[in-house]
Amino acid sequence: MLNGSTQGEVFLIGAGPGDPELLTLKALRMMQEADVVVHDRLVSQAILDLIPANVQRIDVGKKPNHHPVPQHEINALLLRLAEAGQRVARVKGGDPMIFGRGSEEAAVLRDAGIPVSFAPGITAAQGVSASTGVPLTHRGLAKSVRYVTGHCRGDMPLDLDWDGLAHTDTTLVVYMGHANMQYIAGELMNHGLPAEHPVLVVVNGTRPNETRLVTQLGALQTKRAVIPVPGPVLFIVGRVVSLLDDMGQNATDAILDAPELRQVLHG
Amino acid sequence: MLNGSTQGEVFLIGAGPGDPELLTLKALRMMQEADVVVHDRLVSQAILDLIPANVQRIDVGKKPNHHPVPQHEINALLLRLAEAGQRVARVKGGDPMIFGRGSEEAAVLRDAGIPVSFAPGITAAQGVSASTGVPLTHRGLAKSVRYVTGHCRGDMPLDLDWDGLAHTDTTLVVYMGHANMQYIAGELMNHGLPAEHPVLVVVNGTRPNETRLVTQLGALQTKRAVIPVPGPVLFIVGRVVSLLDDMGQNATDAILDAPELRQVLHG
Repeated sequence: MLNGSTQGEVFLIGAGPGDPELLTLKALRMMQEADVVVHDRLVSQAILDLIPANVQRIDVGKKPNHHPVPQHEINALLLRLAEAGQRVARVKGGDPMIFGRGSEEAAVLRDAGIPVSFAPGITAAQGVSASTGVPLTHRGLAKSVRYVTGHCRGDMPLDLDWDGLAHTDTTLVVYMGHANMQYIAGELMNHGLPAEHPVLVVVNGTRPNETRLVTQLGALQTKRAVIPVPGPVLFIVGRVVSLLDDMGQNATDAILDAPELRQVLHG
Repeated sequence: MLNGSTQGEVFLIGAGPGDPELLTLKALRMMQEADVVVHDRLVSQAILDLIPANVQRIDVGKKPNHHPVPQHEINALLLRLAEAGQRVARVKGGDPMIFGRGSEEAAVLRDAGIPVSFAPGITAAQGVSASTGVPLTHRGLAKSVRYVTGHCRGDMPLDLDWDGLAHTDTTLVVYMGHANMQYIAGELMNHGLPAEHPVLVVVNGTRPNETRLVTQLGALQTKRAVIPVPGPVLFIVGRVVSLLDDMGQNATDAILDAPELRQVLHG
């Protein structure tokens, strides 16, 4: 379906961490007003089910060879669709402005004169905070919160501000840290955090198969950082994790669903 | 209206930064399922208008003397309502788990055996990022994002981790920094950030009267940190602010709506 005008536009939409109820009203409206939806692998099926059946969907999270579509091809696709007059909903997991490359896609589109607007999304840290009851800030435990990515490109080493990160008064949330968490835990300890500094590991946060584990930096550092549960992994590092039990949540129950996780990280 | 059971419950709900379309579906559902809504001053009228007319509302953002209700009185109110069997929607601006004291209220309730559940909200940093097009992370400009509060209690000095904060590769978002921003800008420069480090100041982010100003740390530090536009103020400090113009947004137009702001901060 075309707009009727020759000029298309692109909505850059955050779909949140997985639970479809965490969509904003704006994100839902934009998805439903679109002619075509271009989405990532992390956008859950429950969210895609909210898109009207007559709207075209393009999954750029995987190709036939199971590799994601490269960013420059996604940029070209969005540009081509918009220049053909389509109203494009570009839907990403989390928030497009937090580790989402939304601003890179926006820059390409705006350089070509395509109007772009944004709908923010609940980012994984917030989703997990709400589902577990562990706050991101709390008087006396954390007066700030920081989000970093543990992912690095190719053979590049992780170049993080370790001195700034190793701070007991800040909640540190590590996105995409799965592959490097053993190294990250070690560096945080090398820069002053204690081995018993608590860490909450959440796999598939806010989804029906959410799995939680409470551990410590020292334990993380000495175990292989392999999480044998498929799905996105988030690490919340900080004294706020101590509130998990106080808040009546039961992490142990959840871990029983994934004994391999306990074995690898706590065993 | 009572639940029918003797046991009440409390929903701790983030209402986002002001635009009612930034509510999550979950937040809206919880507000509409409640018997009573207890809300802060920062929850916009447009959001309160979404609550069914028969639901009781209690505004704890102001008292007859224009002072907010103290936290211990809010805690006692929530407890009393829930113990009377009510389903209580506790609605806060932003996200209750980020500078929202949601976890403090939850702890009091859970200690009394009251079930608590959470709906996260779009926090001001995300709302402003989406409305201005300035991302919170961006390859080559910011590989992490950090939220701090510039507010301090009573006569206590601001005790922030200045060395960790003064980092050019991180986007620093200052909440409630209005009264102390002159001091904060000075400390960030003392700890290594350049005077020309860009700052985006947004008043009433995501609301119809959103007002923006682009400035620099040096200018902020030498001006009185008084924003003569009423409403919540957010400071985004970092190289990502340089993307504002690239993204086709026009901060200058917005500033014309508030000449006093320009005068105080740029004059």
